Formats: sequence, structure tokens, C-alpha cells
Amino acid sequence: MEKFFDPKSVVVIGASNTPFNLGSTICNMLKDYLQYNGAVYAVNSKGEDVNGYPGFSSVIDLPETPDLAVIIVAAKNVPNIINDCARKGIKRIIIESAGFSEGGEDGKAMQHEIDDVARINGIRIMGPNCLGTLSTRNKFCCFYGVNPSLVEMKQIFEAPGNISYIIQSGGIVVLVMESLYYDLVGVNKIVSIGNKCDVDEADLIDYFQNDETQVIGIYLENMDKGRKLMDAAKKSRKPILIYKVGKTPEGARAAMSHTAGMANNDLIFESACKQAGIIRLQSIDELHSLPKMFTEMPLLKGKQIAMFTNSGAFGSISADLLVEADLQVVRLASQTQEKLKKAGQVFNIKNPVDIGPAPPQTYLDIFEILLSANEVDGLLPLLSVWQPFVIDTLLELMKMCKHYDKPAAIYTPNAVSKSIAIRAKHRIPIFESSEQAVRALSVSNEYYESLLKRNFISKPAPTVNLDTKRPIITAMEVAS
Amino acid sequence: MEKFFDPKSVVVIGASNTPFNLGSTICNMLKDYLQYNGAVYAVNSKGEDVNGYPGFSSVIDLPETPDLAVIIVAAKNVPNIINDCARKGIKRIIIESAGFSEGGEDGKAMQHEIDDVARINGIRIMGPNCLGTLSTRNKFCCFYGVNPSLVEMKQIFEAPGNISYIIQSGGIVVLVMESLYYDLVGVNKIVSIGNKCDVDEADLIDYFQNDETQVIGIYLENMDKGRKLMDAAKKSRKPILIYKVGKTPEGARAAMSHTAGMANNDLIFESACKQAGIIRLQSIDELHSLPKMFTEMPLLKGKQIAMFTNSGAFGSISADLLVEADLQVVRLASQTQEKLKKAGQVFNIKNPVDIGPAPPQTYLDIFEILLSANEVDGLLPLLSVWQPFVIDTLLELMKMCKHYDKPAAIYTPNAVSKSIAIRAKHRIPIFESSEQAVRALSVSNEYYESLLKRNFISKPAPTVNLDTKRPIITAMEVAS
Repeated sequence: MEKFFDPKSVVVIGASNTPFNLGSTICNMLKDYLQYNGAVYAVNSKGEDVNGYPGFSSVIDLPETPDLAVIIVAAKNVPNIINDCARKGIKRIIIESAGFSEGGEDGKAMQHEIDDVARINGIRIMGPNCLGTLSTRNKFCCFYGVNPSLVEMKQIFEAPGNISYIIQSGGIVVLVMESLYYDLVGVNKIVSIGNKCDVDEADLIDYFQNDETQVIGIYLENMDKGRKLMDAAKKSRKPILIYKVGKTPEGARAAMSHTAGMANNDLIFESACKQAGIIRLQSIDELHSLPKMFTEMPLLKGKQIAMFTNSGAFGSISADLLVEADLQVVRLASQTQEKLKKAGQVFNIKNPVDIGPAPPQTYLDIFEILLSANEVDGLLPLLSVWQPFVIDTLLELMKMCKHYDKPAAIYTPNAVSKSIAIRAKHRIPIFESSEQAVRALSVSNEYYESLLKRNFISKPAPTVNLDTKRPIITAMEVAS
Repeated sequence: MEKFFDPKSVVVIGASNTPFNLGSTICNMLKDYLQYNGAVYAVNSKGEDVNGYPGFSSVIDLPETPDLAVIIVAAKNVPNIINDCARKGIKRIIIESAGFSEGGEDGKAMQHEIDDVARINGIRIMGPNCLGTLSTRNKFCCFYGVNPSLVEMKQIFEAPGNISYIIQSGGIVVLVMESLYYDLVGVNKIVSIGNKCDVDEADLIDYFQNDETQVIGIYLENMDKGRKLMDAAKKSRKPILIYKVGKTPEGARAAMSHTAGMANNDLIFESACKQAGIIRLQSIDELHSLPKMFTEMPLLKGKQIAMFTNSGAFGSISADLLVEADLQVVRLASQTQEKLKKAGQVFNIKNPVDIGPAPPQTYLDIFEILLSANEVDGLLPLLSVWQPFVIDTLLELMKMCKHYDKPAAIYTPNAVSKSIAIRAKHRIPIFESSEQAVRALSVSNEYYESLLKRNFISKPAPTVNLDTKRPIITAMEVAS
């Protein structure tokens, strides 16, 4: 699988100098933008060179057997080309062309022909109907039609990260790439799997276990091999976040005309995800908004959340959201409340802790009081201020979170555009709404619990302090 | 009520030249930023002038009885000041100071004292614990602590619009104002009502019936007079969008320490909203994301939605979302499909209509075919392109929507940041995700149905064409 992402030599079949030729956009990106240092060949009917890369009229004529063939020609020509690739001994092929299983009976027949040749010759195929692979650390990308001068492309390659995406649609690949421009998402690899006639999400989950990947984000339109996916997910020691379309028959029908999917039973999928520890996403945007909670913060190991705000409304709103997300508004122990009283500037020493105008040290003191409290599992700071000191304060908070092994889901109401402008640069995981921040806490705990259930970790032995019964606020008490 | 928003004279009680004095920020905004042309007086212990506005040591000494008094002093001094205002004959008071019902027993006692004086003297009071009023057309604002050089403030006053906000928390006022910087929301008036000891959301709903307001956005932390609110809402001929906290006991408890609210029963509130035609918001962001659907587009008069995309994934995702929102993926009539076939570049003539690269005229042709189809009630264009022609195309689409009296909820996947940059300038109601766009269609139809139910409008007589039975896709058919 590695050579799909880091080939030492690649042939782009269908790249030519014809205007609007898509294959040439791949050659241009490899040469002009990525300065890819492997060998690149072009194959086209004239056998012409493309952007300085040597051209041939057939793969058979290439001076070597490349690690990878990328095919981007009309669908009807693909079966012959696959035969040529097999004769040349090529073992990895990405078919970017569309018009196979998603395009009716003729397409399906061609697909079967290709499958047979691949199986007999031990060839692994990605696609068809896909964009192929992108690897930031290897500076390789075979997406067609992407303008490499895009700010988004620059940012991806200049700041490699630890999230890898498996995406069954070119459109969603572009959406994820656009998000990188303003969100804190460092990418390791992106792979667009299209109709996934051979290589599928399960193969890639396995592959991502042994590289720099820390979180796996998946967009799925259909699932032919549900059991295979769930088996791979169960073994995964990295969080898997999946958005799947086709929740309703109408969505499934629309997906069918797009990437040749089948209507799957959503309830079965839902329960299989729970079993396998897969986190199911509620919106496409969560593909980029949630991973930072896993890469930048410890996991949430319990449900007791302390809120800390200087704008009362956001405390009230978030209390509702926490309860709806099956988390709890922790009742702070009396010794914690005493400490808060001494910190000064605190209007409300109960949860949500509410403070007035205060110097940075007061913020740090309160972070420490709350994170060190045994009854608190995680923090929801809702800080409606934006002054230069906030950046340093949040960086200190991140250190404290690591020290106490408890996460904080940061939201800065009334300063969202300002915080978005700085979050990628300073690598501070700031969320854009109370909803997003609470959701991040919720999925962090969901993943932690799946690790326990799968016996990948065991529950820490309770310390003496933890023996104190944790006080939980009941609805009855509040109403009285 | 009008003079709360357009006073000819105002006294700011508590404005002085002491450093960090909050009352002076109101004087500064009125003078330096708004060039307010009424009379302004300051009252403070020294009787000193503030930023050129004449100062007095008591309201009693003012040369006239001002239309409005704004009080921003320590809570314990408020009752005496109210007495002075009564003696002076002032009939409208905004108490911005905090520390009343939300601050314990002493605060409650002071509140009762104030209520008595106000009732006896026929004084209307806004607050306490609030920011007061803002009116773009009257160039008046008495919010304290706002930096008038903020881009957001400029934008509000330079481009008055037709949305009025009633907000029970200063923090949310600031959030809404921040949103104006990048969303398409032209404001008419904003009012922050705080503890609402007298003037409440129902009074303001009544008042907004007779001004430039087209949509009313409300943020509520509690509801003392539920019946009064619901009666006002039932009579409202303008859509009312409410976000209410305290859905859970924990949220209600947090709100109580903030604006002196009471735990209200959320199920009762939910059902009362349905009765009164109130649209209940699912997130704070909807306060600014949804109004544009009402101000810029016709109402959605049925549930049959046609999708039009050039990126298949977004069609599939949105089909799921439509069904989950109780809308329907319309089955296009055969004559509509025939017309689409002739339009050219169409991959899929069924819904979601999917097209390849095409010139602007093809987009316009398809918009027209879909909007003119009798079986279609509304359009969901999911256009993953961003070239200069798109702006003109969308402006044409808006004209067509008005012509056919059917709405479109526009989303431009993969170009969200580009479209945000232009939407306010061109007044194109573009949504930021499939979820937002589908939600906009859903609330538009919900409001239309509430107008029917309240007998404000009657169902249009079916035309000859409408007699054709509308085909609805059933789950059974899709599965077969």
C-alpha cells in the first residue's frame, strides 16, 4: 500500500498537451509545484512529452516498470490499458476515469473485465471514479484538476500533520482541503477511493495503523463489505470518524447514481459503529472541526464537566448542550469552591464559574483549580474576551491539560473570527460554537469508552481522593 | 415605546470622567461616532461635563425633562435615582446596572421598590442588567462598553436592514453584532432586555409590528409571562425566531444565576411555540443565519424540493437532510426531465439534477426549468463552482425565485469563504453548509404553514396543472 502514497516512479496514462487535458494537470503539479523527485512518464496517443516528462504511446514502451500507474482516459479505453499494465508488470494502478459501475450496464461489464485481469495478475487498484492519493510528507499527489497555486494546497504541504482522510467523493476532498485554510487540521494523507472496486476503506484503516496518522476521517457513500470495515475498525488504535450518506432511502438513491453505492440499512450501520468504536459524524464539517480534539488534547475520561466563562449566557446555553450530549454539569466540591473564592473576581463559584474583568493570572489560577479538582473530568472554557494575552493564556491551559491528563474544549464567543485567524498558527484547538465544543468533549469520551470496551486500556485504579462520592446534580434538586 | 429607540433628549446617569467609567462610553458613542442630534445630559456626583455634554449632580437640576433616562450606577443607588426621575417627570428609563433579582435577597427588595415607584408614576422601565436599545435608522444606541470603532458597529449603522433582535443577555448581543460582519443580516433595531422587570419580549413583539421590522429574532433565558408572549406571537404577522436556554434543568439553573430566570417546562414551551407560530432555533448561530431566508426569498409553500448540483456528494448528503427535516425529494415529472435533457450537460435528469462543466446560460436554463415545474415547491442549488459569473447567475436566480414565488436555499460547497466574502455586498442569501440550507427551507415552510393555521392567508386555489397528482417517492419503491 505504501507505494500508492510514495512511489519512486509513476506513469500518467492519458496526460497530453491537448487543451483542457486533465492528466497534464497531474504532471504540472508534480513538476512545478511539488518538485517530485521520482521518475514521471506520460502516455498518450501521440507519444508526446508533457511538461518535460518523457512521453510514450504505450506503457509497454516505458524504460522501466513504474511503481504506480495513474489512468485518466475515457472509460472505454481503460480495459485495454489495464491489460498493457499487467503485461508490463505494474502492480499498483489508480483509475481516476469515471463511467464504470455508476454508469449503467456497459460500465459494469468493463468493471468485471478489469477486476479479472487485476486478480489474475496480483494488481491492486484504487478507484475507478476517484482522485487517488496525496501524501504531505512524501510530497506526492496525483489529484487531477487541482490548481496547485491554491492557498489551501500550500498550507497542506507546508504544515504536515497527523490526520488522514479516506474520502469516497472528489467533491468532499475539495471541501476538506478548503477547510484546511482556516481550521487547525494538519494532514498526513488524503485518499479518494471512488467506486473502490479493490482498495477500500478497511484496507486503508489497516495501512494507517503504522504511519504518522493519529486520527482517521472517512466520508462514505456506500459499504459493500460491512464486516471487513467493522473488523478493521475494531482493531484500530486510532480514532475513526465517519460521515456516511444514505441514512434515508432518498440519500441512498442519490448516492447510487454518484458512486455506484447500494442502499444500506442505517440502523444496522449505527449499531455496528457503536460495537466497533467508530465515531459517527453528524455533519460534513465535523471532518475538519473534530480531529483537533484528538491530536491536541488528552481524552475525556469521565462525564463531569466544569464550565468557566465571563459571559453568563454561554454558560446557560452550554449547560443545556452538555446534558443533551449525555455529559454532566459537575457540582464542584466545597473545597474547590473555597479555592475559587480566593482566586478573586469570581461572581459565581458554582458551575458555570463566572468571572468579571480579571488579569491573565486569575484565568490561569482558575484553570488550575478546576483541572486539579478530582470531581472534574474536563473543562469547557467559554472566554468572551480577545486581547493579546489570551493566546498565551490558552497555550498555558494546553500545558495544564497535558499535565492533569484532562481535556479542555475551548470556545471564544464574540471573538470567533479573531480566534480562527490565529488558531492554526499557534496550534490552539479552538472551536467555533458552544455546540462544536460540547460535541468535541462528547466524542472524546465516546472514543475513550470504546478503548475500555475493546480492552485496549483498563480503567485507572481509583486514587484515595476519587473514593469521595462524586456529587451529581439531579433534576429534582434543581427544581426544588 | 418609540422613544426608547428614538429619544429627542437623553440623560446618562452615572456618566463621569473617572477612568474606566462605563456611562462615559455611551456619551462618547453618541457624540463621536453617531453624531446623535438630540440633547444629551450627564449626571454624576461632581456634576461634571462629559465629552462636552453638560453635567449635573442630579436629574432634578436638568433644564428639561428628557425623553429617556439611562442609568448605569451601582445597584444600591438606583432606587433613589428612580425617585428623582419620577419627580422630574421622566417616563422612560433603561436600567443597565446589574445586581437586582439575579443578585439575591437584597437585590430583590430593591427591585420591588423600583417596581412600585414606576407603577405609581406611569414609568416604563427596561432592564435592569441590560444594554438597552440600538436603532440603525435613528442612529441611536445606548449600549455601554462598546468600542464604536469596531467594524461590526460601522456595518450595522451603514447598512440598516429589517431584522430586529430582542436579546436577554449582553453577551449574545455582542455575538449577534460580530456575526453582522460576515453574514447577510441588515439590522433595524436591537434591544437587550436583561431581567425585564417591566418591558418584555411581548411588548417588543407588539411594537415591531408597526415599524420596518420584517423578522424578529429573540434570545430568551426565561419566561415569566408565557401567556403574554404567546398571545403577542399569535398576532404577529412577522416571523418570530426564538432561541431559549433552560431546555434542561441544568441550563435553567445556570440561567437563574445570570438573569434571574425561573426553570420553565420545556415541553410546554415547545408546544406553545407550535401553537403560536414561533420558530424555535436549534443553535445561537441561527439568529443570524436564518433571517436572510425570510427577507430575501419567497416562502416555501410546499414540501417538494428539487436539488441541482455539479458535485454528486452534496446531492446525496442533502437528500438525507431533506428527509430528516420532513421535506421531500421531489420526483420530477417526465416533461420536466425532457426539458432538462434538452438543456445539455446534464448527467442526471432525475433529482438531484447533476451537471458537468457548463456555461452560465445552462445554469439559468436549469433554474428556470425547475422553478417553473408545477411539482417543485422550492430549490436547493448546491453549486460547487466559483467564478465571477456565479454572482450574476445567482442574482438572476433571485429574480426568478420572486417571479415564480418559490424560494431557493443557496449553498456553494467548496467556495464558502469566497461566497461569504461577497454575500453581504451583493445581498445574495448564501448558506454555509447543506445543513443550514435545508434548515432554511424547513423553517420557511414551517412559517408558511403557521400563517395558514392562524388564518392570516388562505391556501391558493389549485391551478389546472396543480391537479396533476404530485408523485412522491416512497421508501418501498427505492428499495425495490
